Amino acid sequence: MPDFTATKSHFHLPQGVTYLDGNSLGPLPRAAADRMGRVMQEEWGEMLITGWNKAGWMAQPGLLGDRIGRLVGAEPGYVMLGDTLSIKVYQALAAALSLRPERRVILSDTGNFPTDLYMAEGLIDTLGQTHELRCVAPEEVEDAITDEVAVLMLTEVDYRTGRRHDMARLTQKAHKNGALAIWDLAHSAGALPVDVAGGKADFAVGCTYKFLNGGPGAPAFIYVAPRHAEATAPALSGWLGHAAPFDFEQTYRAAPGVARMRVGTPPVLAMASLEAALDIWDGVEMAEVYSRAQDLSERLIQGIEAACPMLTLASPRDPNTRGSQVSFRFEHGYEAMQACIAHGVIGDFRAPDIMRFGITPLYLDEADIDRAIEVITKVMTERLWDDDTYRQRAAVT
Amino acid sequence: MPDFTATKSHFHLPQGVTYLDGNSLGPLPRAAADRMGRVMQEEWGEMLITGWNKAGWMAQPGLLGDRIGRLVGAEPGYVMLGDTLSIKVYQALAAALSLRPERRVILSDTGNFPTDLYMAEGLIDTLGQTHELRCVAPEEVEDAITDEVAVLMLTEVDYRTGRRHDMARLTQKAHKNGALAIWDLAHSAGALPVDVAGGKADFAVGCTYKFLNGGPGAPAFIYVAPRHAEATAPALSGWLGHAAPFDFEQTYRAAPGVARMRVGTPPVLAMASLEAALDIWDGVEMAEVYSRAQDLSERLIQGIEAACPMLTLASPRDPNTRGSQVSFRFEHGYEAMQACIAHGVIGDFRAPDIMRFGITPLYLDEADIDRAIEVITKVMTERLWDDDTYRQRAAVT
Repeated sequence: MPDFTATKSHFHLPQGVTYLDGNSLGPLPRAAADRMGRVMQEEWGEMLITGWNKAGWMAQPGLLGDRIGRLVGAEPGYVMLGDTLSIKVYQALAAALSLRPERRVILSDTGNFPTDLYMAEGLIDTLGQTHELRCVAPEEVEDAITDEVAVLMLTEVDYRTGRRHDMARLTQKAHKNGALAIWDLAHSAGALPVDVAGGKADFAVGCTYKFLNGGPGAPAFIYVAPRHAEATAPALSGWLGHAAPFDFEQTYRAAPGVARMRVGTPPVLAMASLEAALDIWDGVEMAEVYSRAQDLSERLIQGIEAACPMLTLASPRDPNTRGSQVSFRFEHGYEAMQACIAHGVIGDFRAPDIMRFGITPLYLDEADIDRAIEVITKVMTERLWDDDTYRQRAAVT
Repeated sequence: MPDFTATKSHFHLPQGVTYLDGNSLGPLPRAAADRMGRVMQEEWGEMLITGWNKAGWMAQPGLLGDRIGRLVGAEPGYVMLGDTLSIKVYQALAAALSLRPERRVILSDTGNFPTDLYMAEGLIDTLGQTHELRCVAPEEVEDAITDEVAVLMLTEVDYRTGRRHDMARLTQKAHKNGALAIWDLAHSAGALPVDVAGGKADFAVGCTYKFLNGGPGAPAFIYVAPRHAEATAPALSGWLGHAAPFDFEQTYRAAPGVARMRVGTPPVLAMASLEAALDIWDGVEMAEVYSRAQDLSERLIQGIEAACPMLTLASPRDPNTRGSQVSFRFEHGYEAMQACIAHGVIGDFRAPDIMRFGITPLYLDEADIDRAIEVITKVMTERLWDDDTYRQRAAVT
């Protein structure tokens, strides 16, 4: 069992706040600001351009990729950091479609995060409307995997409900039908045990600012299965994915393996923060994190259901089909969440009626869950949400 | 005349180093580390997820875009920050081609930075090989603009020689022939007066880690001319370019104007550093910076040509057709540059034989140029480059 008191001590958590939104933006690792200061002053400041080699900036996307790779069950050398999740979705999807040139259907579900669907739309436009994006309800995905499907593109854990797909089973069915599978791990990486290699995912993508605590806008990652790594021609063929970027050749030649999924100059400062965040994961096993998240989730569900009958559980009741979040439906969910935040419990709201709470054992314990239950109960039973000050909608909650 | 002693004082420059590589990576602004610390601790640390609104993170890409826009002559509201230059090239090119659906030729030159050409190759593959990337020598571009051309895609200042294209004239010829023009301002933004609006550029892209001093891997920017801003369907249609990202709709609807060129979650930490760097430009006029860069460049050229006959000027002799860099050809340029760096003068090397020196008046003065002349002269006349320790090639110089 990892020492979660120790991991909690590695984070800065503001006074008087109970933070159940680490599934949207993880909190500040205490070491991150110092690490950033060092990279800025001792590396950028002192080494200037020579930092690319001397401080190892150029190698960081692959090194950090591998550290994330360990957390998602990837073979070493097949995860690359960079860009945003949206860009990584585009890369994975373009590569996967090019491996199934005779097929025309991208299968996804209506619980996928919208940017995955939007990026697919944009790619389909660019490909000349030769493909179809077919979205079915999450529970209908399995039956919709037919031999028409080129690529199954799913987010493992639903961003609203926390419902978790069975990656291995759906991937197996995709393969049986001659399709490839892309898994978006946005709500999986750092939340639960993922086994992209064992589950035979063809591609996987994810972000590092949620459960991995890399900081707002931290870079994304992409996994390419070893069997595809030399076979894919990258649609976003940037110079750092070239076999010899500093030869400045006129024509693109893909770098070996997953390195071809690099595009432009890597975000050195953002990587400094992420590196400090990943240090906290050293020695932490995902199975133990997930097991504790399930316990904390059960505690939250039981506490809320006992005290707040007006809230309806939107997450699966079976802990094994749930990610590390608990969501409830409530007609006035937006206002209720604003009231919770005003009273020191931060979760978030997802339209139309979802109140979402992230369960992040690295820095949440039973006392935090109990405090959350207490505040949510107060907000609901005292109808604190029924107040004009909470009706003003901001862009992001 | 801006006070360049004052601007110099805003940068940290390491002891004993003369830095003529700000055209590759600008130095650390003294205020950047503090700004970063504040954003990490007071915003991310204390506000957590609420920083997106409360600290204004979500609005930053447009606000910083406009500050860059002032430096490149853009209309307010038409520059957006984000991603890398490679990604922005892809966006601009995809948009431009969609505005000229009947045409098939992308015209560029062999002096363009390779990633621009590589990204065009990748886009052409994705479009189904329906287009041709035609690269001519820089001096042949004007004649090659015919009514076959869909898009003229050029970097204004050649990364190797510093040769500067005439943006207004070439754009005018492109328009006369029914083509659109995309300008890469990587070596222009913060280096010389650019007038994308007056020059009638259709799209422009650039990076912020060179002359703008945003930090290693700082985000890129894209300009879309107002006349095209509502007409382009973004190929990289990410959720933050959606008209209502937080409505989480299933289908993409482009945001108004240049906001549709946003893709994923913005790089908040990288933007903190860039913001501090842009503060230094407040009140600085590009014409004055360029004029001083021309003086310093002349001083360097005269000093080197007088003392080092083995170096051949690779940059245009006419200061008005040159960006803010001076390049020399030398057979053993790699080793010679390594020797210069070992002796405290940092420039860089570009294959096959270019020694490149960036001229950045915000923090370089006559004494720096004289010191550079002295060291380069010593390296050349004493054949310091002829030493095995300088032959080991690293990935980046």
